[in-house]
Amino acid sequence: MPQPRRKHFGWGREGEGFAPEEREFAFARLRERFGVDDFDRRPPPRLEDIALRQPRIAPPAPLAGICSSASHDRAAHTYGKSYPDYVHGLAGDYASAPDVVAYPRSEAEVAAVLDWAGGAQAAVIPFGGGSSVCGGVEPRLDGNRYKAAVTIDMREMGAVVEVDRASRAALIEGGAYGPALEAQLRPHGLTLRHFPQSFEYSTLGGWIATRSGGHFATLYTHIDDFVESLRVVTPNGIVESRRLPGSGAGPSPDRLFIGSEGILGIITRAWMRLQDRPKFRAGGSVRFPDFFAAARALRAVAQSGLYPANCRILDAQEAYNTGAGDGSGAIMVLAFESADHPVEPWMHRALECCADHGGEPELAGGRDAHREGAAELWRTAFIRMPYAREVTVPCAVINDTFETAITWERFAALHDKIIAATAAAIRDATGRAGSVTCRVTHAYPDGPAPYFTFHALGRHGDLLEQWRAIKSAALDAVIEAGGTVTHHHAVGRDHRPWYDRQRPALFADALRAAKGAVDPQGLMNPGVLIDA
Amino acid sequence: MPQPRRKHFGWGREGEGFAPEEREFAFARLRERFGVDDFDRRPPPRLEDIALRQPRIAPPAPLAGICSSASHDRAAHTYGKSYPDYVHGLAGDYASAPDVVAYPRSEAEVAAVLDWAGGAQAAVIPFGGGSSVCGGVEPRLDGNRYKAAVTIDMREMGAVVEVDRASRAALIEGGAYGPALEAQLRPHGLTLRHFPQSFEYSTLGGWIATRSGGHFATLYTHIDDFVESLRVVTPNGIVESRRLPGSGAGPSPDRLFIGSEGILGIITRAWMRLQDRPKFRAGGSVRFPDFFAAARALRAVAQSGLYPANCRILDAQEAYNTGAGDGSGAIMVLAFESADHPVEPWMHRALECCADHGGEPELAGGRDAHREGAAELWRTAFIRMPYAREVTVPCAVINDTFETAITWERFAALHDKIIAATAAAIRDATGRAGSVTCRVTHAYPDGPAPYFTFHALGRHGDLLEQWRAIKSAALDAVIEAGGTVTHHHAVGRDHRPWYDRQRPALFADALRAAKGAVDPQGLMNPGVLIDA
Repeated sequence: MPQPRRKHFGWGREGEGFAPEEREFAFARLRERFGVDDFDRRPPPRLEDIALRQPRIAPPAPLAGICSSASHDRAAHTYGKSYPDYVHGLAGDYASAPDVVAYPRSEAEVAAVLDWAGGAQAAVIPFGGGSSVCGGVEPRLDGNRYKAAVTIDMREMGAVVEVDRASRAALIEGGAYGPALEAQLRPHGLTLRHFPQSFEYSTLGGWIATRSGGHFATLYTHIDDFVESLRVVTPNGIVESRRLPGSGAGPSPDRLFIGSEGILGIITRAWMRLQDRPKFRAGGSVRFPDFFAAARALRAVAQSGLYPANCRILDAQEAYNTGAGDGSGAIMVLAFESADHPVEPWMHRALECCADHGGEPELAGGRDAHREGAAELWRTAFIRMPYAREVTVPCAVINDTFETAITWERFAALHDKIIAATAAAIRDATGRAGSVTCRVTHAYPDGPAPYFTFHALGRHGDLLEQWRAIKSAALDAVIEAGGTVTHHHAVGRDHRPWYDRQRPALFADALRAAKGAVDPQGLMNPGVLIDA
Repeated sequence: MPQPRRKHFGWGREGEGFAPEEREFAFARLRERFGVDDFDRRPPPRLEDIALRQPRIAPPAPLAGICSSASHDRAAHTYGKSYPDYVHGLAGDYASAPDVVAYPRSEAEVAAVLDWAGGAQAAVIPFGGGSSVCGGVEPRLDGNRYKAAVTIDMREMGAVVEVDRASRAALIEGGAYGPALEAQLRPHGLTLRHFPQSFEYSTLGGWIATRSGGHFATLYTHIDDFVESLRVVTPNGIVESRRLPGSGAGPSPDRLFIGSEGILGIITRAWMRLQDRPKFRAGGSVRFPDFFAAARALRAVAQSGLYPANCRILDAQEAYNTGAGDGSGAIMVLAFESADHPVEPWMHRALECCADHGGEPELAGGRDAHREGAAELWRTAFIRMPYAREVTVPCAVINDTFETAITWERFAALHDKIIAATAAAIRDATGRAGSVTCRVTHAYPDGPAPYFTFHALGRHGDLLEQWRAIKSAALDAVIEAGGTVTHHHAVGRDHRPWYDRQRPALFADALRAAKGAVDPQGLMNPGVLIDA
């Protein structure tokens, strides 16, 4: 049965979204937070009310069958899922819509689209699931360098091509969406176990191109370490690295393409390292008197060599917002899992680390503990979160998230600076208090990856400007405190000013030169990461 | 007390080397292997008998105090420690000696040497401990592009500059040798725990530039994962990355320089992730009826998520050669260690994995088991190995090693192909049988890193040609069987023909372009990895 098409505004497919009770839970929390009885609701425009410019180019006949310039295709590929994307969409502003959307079914068709685009001087925008929250897929073409924009949606290339059971690896096409990818691996008893929040509507190629963060809170946090080899179609030809479990032969070719955000080419296939499906589990949640006590416990666990699959901490407000806590303390969601051995000794020692810092287990030890209590409430909220914005943005709520990473010795200072700067910017921009909360999503021996969420009540007409003031203050604080502009959300076009302050200038020169070697016309995803 | 100077021929410092009983053990094994009573011994030339060309350039006055063109400096920096390096040295062939050796004491002096070399059109050869086994430090200048060669020896920049106990990290200068680095960390209760075979005579900067393989047989096998940030002096300026425990901001800047083998610049400082010194240990050795049974057990352990610190397997002959076994079966050297928790549950489960494949523990469970029996014998042999060549090469013994990595499903085929090709090449080249043995030094969930050692009895005068025939056949087999030309020995100049077959051509173009952005004159380590 064919699935409904993707929404042109909102998360997922037409017909999907918050159930009435989810909506009511979210609005109750928001009304309480802002002390208001109701919101100024503006409905998003219907597709037929959106004005799109005439396409500036048309595909050649051999490609016509895989290309579309229909309104829905163009509108649904104009934006990702960032806050400003929703505001533009709500305002009916689709000025940057691609002229053509191509849906190649093979590597040869990808190459043919690149050839055509090169001849037509069209920018090429690689598009996976379209879940970018940093302007990574918007054909924002400044100046006259490009005559048009062609978006390449990889959804037709989603197959698991080959499985190597002995090495626990699979060759997977770049356009594979999370659920379909896992469904194809399940009969082999294998799993990639990469569950970013966007899991339902993001793709393997997108995860690799953006250095996505996944299920594992320690050790294998990014998709990076699961890449065994890559195949990338660039405007100058195909790059294919060898399948190797490890190598010391020069700088890693894969690492140049991992995180390249579409500026070098399109990841058509990757051999990915997989996991056996876990059989043994231990987990639960641990309450702490305060967030920094939880962070000290997290540091102890991260430096212990125990490597929990999940080990996330939520501050008191964040725990309350998601329903995982009563707001009186911080929560750690902790879980070990294994396909090989019972993990109770691991869990036992991790709880000792927590106890050393005042942590008290809420639920622990049970095989299904990861599906109970605070852990489960948080998990459900986490997965459903992306559906929130299409109901909150029309109510002029400004809600966004950003994540960073920092070494332990600077964590408290970074946290406090960011919270203060963001809260002040919310007051300045909106004239009333909002909220800024923090969780830590991934933890390393040398530091945490904190993730911040803010909510403010804005004004229709001013939302973009208000959001920009708040987000800029927040990212200024991130960079000034020594953090990274992104731990796993990518850079795209929107994080450029802060990325430019973070990355070494000579590295940008080297990356620009490397791009010139594979994309001499500068077709690929212009404006992302660097100016070509 | 000043240390004796480094040998111009051989490993380590003047006065160091095999003790008489080590020498006798090695020769007894070699006589037995080749069925000979004695060897044709040719002594290496004394320093005063080596003819060096007149230096083609001289440093400017401000750099004169840190530069030398003395014979010992030039001879001791002509070669690394590869087999052909020893043969050239034995023959008194020092034609590629650098004109000047610089010993900068600061980053400013490194930059000043680069500036001077650029103006003088001199190639610059970065030199750490000089332990390269792939022609990585030999100023082999073809053609007329360069007027001279300047080697930069980083030995004066070996300080641990700063320690961050909370994040378990330290800022360390690139010229720090293994023992001195560890001695500076010990008072803090910390260790880098990176122990390549070259540990005594190799440096942090060299390890990073060559993607060195270290102590940990699983999980953190290469130095790569311990690099938190880098500072690199390039001819175009300084690149410094942020200290971050993890990041998703574009392709990793560090990963471009990790493995760059001196062609982009000189690594002057790095923030390195450290370990607490282990307090808990369990280990021992396990005997297997044959090597592939041991490999199946190794795969089970590598895929278990137990992450032993040591988990190496030796084939029967290799175990015998090092004195760790009687030649009747394969040996696994297995060890868990932790600063945080007792590791018996880990060891217990790993031994179950071994038993599933016919492995019988020789010694296990004891706190000091890693210092007993076969494990200790192997360990001693491993550390002393580099001193062997200066006594075996003068006897016309051809002995070399090479390492690769491959996914599990292709391991047996790769192993058998390499053993057969190398053994046949030894017979062809020398007219008599030699030996080819294998151990696996590192293991990944998706494949092992096998390490091959061969011994042949050659003829003085023909050693280079004989060695080349054998090594070429071996590396042809590596590449044809799908392996990497190097797992942790690097590419240098000598592995180029096979590296060129392995790495994607477009990646070489991208790397060349990136080099052009930081080293537009192509001064840095010409001939390594790529042709500029």
